[in-house]
Amino acid sequence: MINKVSIAGSGNVAMHIAPALIAAGVKVVSIYSRNLQHASSLAALAGAIPVDQISLFDDNAELLLIALPDKVIPEFASQLKQNGNFHGIVAHTCGSQPLSVLSDLFDKAGVFYPLQSFSRFSQPDIKEVPFCIEASNNELALNLSELAGRISGNVRFLDSQQRAIVHLAAVFACNFSNHMYALSADILEKEGIKADILQPLIRETANRLGDLHPGMLQTGPAVRGDFQTIDSHLKLLEEFPELKPVYMQISDSIAGWESRSKIRIIKT
Amino acid sequence: MINKVSIAGSGNVAMHIAPALIAAGVKVVSIYSRNLQHASSLAALAGAIPVDQISLFDDNAELLLIALPDKVIPEFASQLKQNGNFHGIVAHTCGSQPLSVLSDLFDKAGVFYPLQSFSRFSQPDIKEVPFCIEASNNELALNLSELAGRISGNVRFLDSQQRAIVHLAAVFACNFSNHMYALSADILEKEGIKADILQPLIRETANRLGDLHPGMLQTGPAVRGDFQTIDSHLKLLEEFPELKPVYMQISDSIAGWESRSKIRIIKT
Repeated sequence: MINKVSIAGSGNVAMHIAPALIAAGVKVVSIYSRNLQHASSLAALAGAIPVDQISLFDDNAELLLIALPDKVIPEFASQLKQNGNFHGIVAHTCGSQPLSVLSDLFDKAGVFYPLQSFSRFSQPDIKEVPFCIEASNNELALNLSELAGRISGNVRFLDSQQRAIVHLAAVFACNFSNHMYALSADILEKEGIKADILQPLIRETANRLGDLHPGMLQTGPAVRGDFQTIDSHLKLLEEFPELKPVYMQISDSIAGWESRSKIRIIKT
Repeated sequence: MINKVSIAGSGNVAMHIAPALIAAGVKVVSIYSRNLQHASSLAALAGAIPVDQISLFDDNAELLLIALPDKVIPEFASQLKQNGNFHGIVAHTCGSQPLSVLSDLFDKAGVFYPLQSFSRFSQPDIKEVPFCIEASNNELALNLSELAGRISGNVRFLDSQQRAIVHLAAVFACNFSNHMYALSADILEKEGIKADILQPLIRETANRLGDLHPGMLQTGPAVRGDFQTIDSHLKLLEEFPELKPVYMQISDSIAGWESRSKIRIIKT
């Protein structure tokens, strides 16, 4: 059972994971950031020692969680290896990096990936965040999943290929849908309408998702084949030249999805 | 004050509006559908008379709400006019049709548009649904907004041009984001991963929207300029040939938004 954790990183992931670990009775012993001030402010909240050098990590931590930006992780891991004084489990919290960036260097390597978008603007319920676990052996995987289970009720085992697929799917479901919200806000802004008028609709569209495939809940002119409405939208989009190709591409994609799914239904 | 309403239509809009009106003390006197059985089942719930002919509408209703599919409304309105026995306010509940489809035919014409996606799969809180009101004169507009105010706390006056813009924006924010959920479910399905793993992330992305422009909350590889991750996503998308152009188009659009917004920030 893991009871002492060090964290590398002081960004959004660290800022949400550290308090959850502490609330679950885990001791956060040291927090690393290249910028000591960043490490210090989180460390003060966590009762941990802030460090700005890899060599200063507390040797007693059973787990080092690397909660750094995706692309910095390989470089950080190789520095940690060179330093050679950390002997616990080394795990990263990122969706896009395979386990191998750590398991190639360390015997006890893992992934502890919270599938959520953390920002300083909101506080998602950590108990519902899916934690995706992978490790270099089964015992480690169980160890990490037990730790995740102390802060979340939603723990899963995913290998690196599955995690890459989940990360890609999350780009569609989260990054791309947020961009759709941004484009809709731009359209309204130009007409002087406050974007909050769409919030109940946006929330309903996201919150009604259940066991049905979202494609079955698709509404709008593209899925109805309502070309009259599509034409009037394309006319309105003359004033938004950057948005027109997006509108056309996604409308085509919706129509294509619909026709593929009909084929599927006929087939089954 | 409007106290007696007839409804044309027995679909999702009628199914959600009728009970709300009744709960607010409004009498629903008759419900029309071309299919008498459809009219009957809703009428039974509402204590109303089901009709399948326009000539049978109750003459005493002060308002006839046309909650029919967008493209059927002009044809229905012209039949109603020819019939000539309805003398109350005639209003439609649709986002994409201008007021003129009714005001060209009737003296007392209006729009009573609930900006929400109603389906039989969920029950959005009607009190939060924005009702967009327009009418052929101010007294009528106040009359309709008073009625809307009895079922929702979110009533707005929008003219036909503004409503068309809101409808276009809603296609981006709701229809297109739902399609992103559908594509993400397809990606996961192919790898044998249950799509519910993304639900907390989807909900957080929608529910955290507040006063900030959604563009300011954008995350993901496209806004970070993380071409390494984008490349690895494009490789994974080799197995999803229909999804690749969508991924590229939206990623370009995100990068474009980001660069436009920087210009905006420098300018202001």
